[in-house]
Amino acid sequence: MRNLDSHEDYKVDKTQLHRDLAGLAGSFPEPAEEYAAPYGVVGYGEAWWPAELAHHWIPRLLTEGGTQFVLQGGLDLGAAAGAVSAAEASDARVVRVGFGGKVDVAIEPHPLSPYRYLRFLQQATSEAETGARVDRAIGALASQLGPEVPTEDNPAKFFAWNLLERIPLWVVSERYVGLAAALQQTFARIAGSISIAPPPGSLEFFITALEARHEQGDPLAAVVVGEDERTRLALEILETRVDTLLELPRLPAEGLIPEMLAAWYFIAWAAYYLAILYGRDPADAEVLVRLREET
Amino acid sequence: MRNLDSHEDYKVDKTQLHRDLAGLAGSFPEPAEEYAAPYGVVGYGEAWWPAELAHHWIPRLLTEGGTQFVLQGGLDLGAAAGAVSAAEASDARVVRVGFGGKVDVAIEPHPLSPYRYLRFLQQATSEAETGARVDRAIGALASQLGPEVPTEDNPAKFFAWNLLERIPLWVVSERYVGLAAALQQTFARIAGSISIAPPPGSLEFFITALEARHEQGDPLAAVVVGEDERTRLALEILETRVDTLLELPRLPAEGLIPEMLAAWYFIAWAAYYLAILYGRDPADAEVLVRLREET
Repeated sequence: MRNLDSHEDYKVDKTQLHRDLAGLAGSFPEPAEEYAAPYGVVGYGEAWWPAELAHHWIPRLLTEGGTQFVLQGGLDLGAAAGAVSAAEASDARVVRVGFGGKVDVAIEPHPLSPYRYLRFLQQATSEAETGARVDRAIGALASQLGPEVPTEDNPAKFFAWNLLERIPLWVVSERYVGLAAALQQTFARIAGSISIAPPPGSLEFFITALEARHEQGDPLAAVVVGEDERTRLALEILETRVDTLLELPRLPAEGLIPEMLAAWYFIAWAAYYLAILYGRDPADAEVLVRLREET
Repeated sequence: MRNLDSHEDYKVDKTQLHRDLAGLAGSFPEPAEEYAAPYGVVGYGEAWWPAELAHHWIPRLLTEGGTQFVLQGGLDLGAAAGAVSAAEASDARVVRVGFGGKVDVAIEPHPLSPYRYLRFLQQATSEAETGARVDRAIGALASQLGPEVPTEDNPAKFFAWNLLERIPLWVVSERYVGLAAALQQTFARIAGSISIAPPPGSLEFFITALEARHEQGDPLAAVVVGEDERTRLALEILETRVDTLLELPRLPAEGLIPEMLAAWYFIAWAAYYLAILYGRDPADAEVLVRLREET
């Protein structure tokens, strides 16, 4: 049996991903210049979520002037390049952020890169104050969730044990649009495991999807993020239908985007420990590197 | 062992859902009057997908005048009522479509209602020509997929056998935005079973999510809809990682929305047969009726 409190078991973490997790707050490229407003942003591959978050304050595409950010997150089969060409044909300045081909601001492929794209965008588009709240939340969590904090005091380790051999079903507050899919992405990337994000109309899904087979005990774990009427009803529905219910602890974050990033960061840690429990390297899979070359 | 070619086994279908499936083409409320352009549409609960499809030609919200359609698909915790109030405060005419509270155009809760909302909207907003193509595709499929067509000639029955005791993973062409979640919804509603729609950046998900546990054989079935570079790569990735690969046959549909509806209709039939194989009533669950009263 593996032990999350023993140094020995972390040997599978060949790239020391736990250091990247622990030091995440602040680890992003600071803009080296001023970018002219208005702003537009599109994102591809591993950068789809930061672009979606940024749409809370920036549209996708500019109609005239300003700066068009294109987040090149790879695996996009030429979509980012198409967006760049389209933007260049307008009179916006195009700023390419990410990796692959020419980039103006480099962000390496990494399981935690969504944070870096988001923070860069916040700094570059006068949202630094929200960005500082993201960093405070993540910084506060870092000291509670790292490997040095023993299992009995570490909720991310507790989550990992409870997710072992189970399939997470993400149940998120109505306010956290896009978060379930982001958790699904990062959980796959780090823990190497599948999970289920419900479709829109999630209550219908929760109540119908587990009817035919729930007595056969698919090993599901409902993971609940945030509190509202929808998560309360979902909890009632799922209680008798899944193996286990896990509610994220209240996180030290203020505001919608900081709350979502804090939840994502918590799950990234839980996925990290789950990888350790599975004896798997939690960093980028070799296969992903090869796929990037193909796309 | 159940037999999809025996009348006996269809007794669990208490509401004769197979008749609704077979007669779906044309079964929608025709607009009884003219609605003034421009149009806006928002959709909730089971009507989220038809609203999203309609955004191919209608925006969400009107800025002035015209007709604002609000699709009341239930289970929305007051969101539709909020949208109605907001629209009434503008100078748009509000048309409420669906069920629950006051409605102007009634569409009963039903596993196949997404088709009905969509077709009503097409007729009401000068998209009847595309609607006719949807109906031709669904009409053509109806005669190939019904219970009277024996298993050896019926691809929907073949799919059901191959999905038995497995979790579908929806792999859809890049062009079919939103379709994977719609399949997840309808598969849950009819087959009473879970399935997995990937997050945006689906190739990354396919290649990473099955790393840690794939040797433990989660019983996944990749279901591939449409052909393009993304589905081709996904097939390559998933081939060695899932239990079985199922490719939807080429469907007799012309144009983006007809193609998506045809694929959805095919999967609705497959889900229907799967419910029969599980010995489960494929129509609305009693629990769903109770939940509607609560929300």
